[in-house]
Amino acid sequence: MQIWYTIVVRRLTFGDMMIQRVQWVRQSLEELISQHRPGDRLPSEESLAKTLDVSRATVRSALIALEQEGRIVRRHGLGTFVAQQRPLVRASLHHLSSVADIVRDNGYRAEVKGIDILPVTLHHPVASSLGCEDGDPGYRVTRTVYADGTPAVYLVDYLPEKFGDQIIDLRGYSDRMLSYLRSFGIVVDYAITQLSLGRAFEESAQALNISVGDPVLLLTQVAYTALQVPVVYSLGIHREGYVTYSILRHTDARKD
Amino acid sequence: MQIWYTIVVRRLTFGDMMIQRVQWVRQSLEELISQHRPGDRLPSEESLAKTLDVSRATVRSALIALEQEGRIVRRHGLGTFVAQQRPLVRASLHHLSSVADIVRDNGYRAEVKGIDILPVTLHHPVASSLGCEDGDPGYRVTRTVYADGTPAVYLVDYLPEKFGDQIIDLRGYSDRMLSYLRSFGIVVDYAITQLSLGRAFEESAQALNISVGDPVLLLTQVAYTALQVPVVYSLGIHREGYVTYSILRHTDARKD
Repeated sequence: MQIWYTIVVRRLTFGDMMIQRVQWVRQSLEELISQHRPGDRLPSEESLAKTLDVSRATVRSALIALEQEGRIVRRHGLGTFVAQQRPLVRASLHHLSSVADIVRDNGYRAEVKGIDILPVTLHHPVASSLGCEDGDPGYRVTRTVYADGTPAVYLVDYLPEKFGDQIIDLRGYSDRMLSYLRSFGIVVDYAITQLSLGRAFEESAQALNISVGDPVLLLTQVAYTALQVPVVYSLGIHREGYVTYSILRHTDARKD
Repeated sequence: MQIWYTIVVRRLTFGDMMIQRVQWVRQSLEELISQHRPGDRLPSEESLAKTLDVSRATVRSALIALEQEGRIVRRHGLGTFVAQQRPLVRASLHHLSSVADIVRDNGYRAEVKGIDILPVTLHHPVASSLGCEDGDPGYRVTRTVYADGTPAVYLVDYLPEKFGDQIIDLRGYSDRMLSYLRSFGIVVDYAITQLSLGRAFEESAQALNISVGDPVLLLTQVAYTALQVPVVYSLGIHREGYVTYSILRHTDARKD
């Protein structure tokens, strides 16, 4: 429970020069990219390092940053290419709405493909999160949300077969789970969502057209009615580079 | 702006059997892990597939899931090992507090190491986020937060040199940025935070003892005073498997 600190304070030094240099390399590469079209191959790391008179490590660091932002694509043994402009969907974490709506609200074409509804038995941690017994019957609903033609988010929802005495027939479900449940009088009021870094499994990798083990942004969510009855357990598996979530965080300052 | 849907509804089928089987394989592996100690090697994928009478793909899928949860470690060519229990820090995204405090509140020993304060010039997007001119002088403060001895989060803060007429001397800074700024009368009230999936750069990779390009959970944050004056631009680079953030999300249901 202890907190330990170590501290180093430096004046303007070699390190500062290095950071200025990295920024300059970054700007030079951005300029180079802006002069090319998507799919064009950029000069090699070695060639860029020579041209800019910096180390290959510095060039590589800048290229990784640009790759992360979706500006370039690096293919081992093939080289570095200017990327297609990919959509970057921004969503507020405060508000709970359908992923398709979020994609559309960002100005992209949204498609929901491969909706698949399957009766399953519910196990831990899904069963306990939904207030069911282990082995209770339920549904597993999967689908992929495309943004401008690219699979961006793979969604897996688990629902119990019954809410109280009411049996849910999901065969009429077509897209938005929350709207569909409302047609049965089940109104989701809020959800508790966990955000973490995950990895793509075979199923999600296939749906998102990525490799098994590729990193994904994972939203694990339980949605509740206003009476705090759990309704849906969801996994939102977000392909890298497509979605960023924003949130407002408050400090304790107002308590003073 | 259109939304398209495709749908497949299935009855209890082969797919259901497959999912039951995956769950059963998963439970069997959990049982196996519980019978071993951290560092023990588990049987090979092939051997597990034979024992459980399922395909290697099914075993691999379950192993990836267990690896993602930090239960096992898979090393190519070496095999699968039972993982050390690693801390999993849970934090609320609603509340803005120091990472060291978050780690400590989760019951882990928190250490802040390698605090480094460097004068820099501020550039886009940091300068514009802080309401500065491009090239204005500022500080770059970096440090690593350890949870139970393991580097979990690498933090990079950018601050302008001056807030209005006030020059900030960061040499007295020892750990919590927000507390330190309050000692100058600069009270952070809230922050706007973006969460996304990122990749480790050389600097953050070194600090977190991971490889360049490894996936990280990235929090990009601008902190403001109650008068909406931006104070700090921060990057929180979170090592995989250590931190999960939770949040409460509301639907539109209450508007009706």
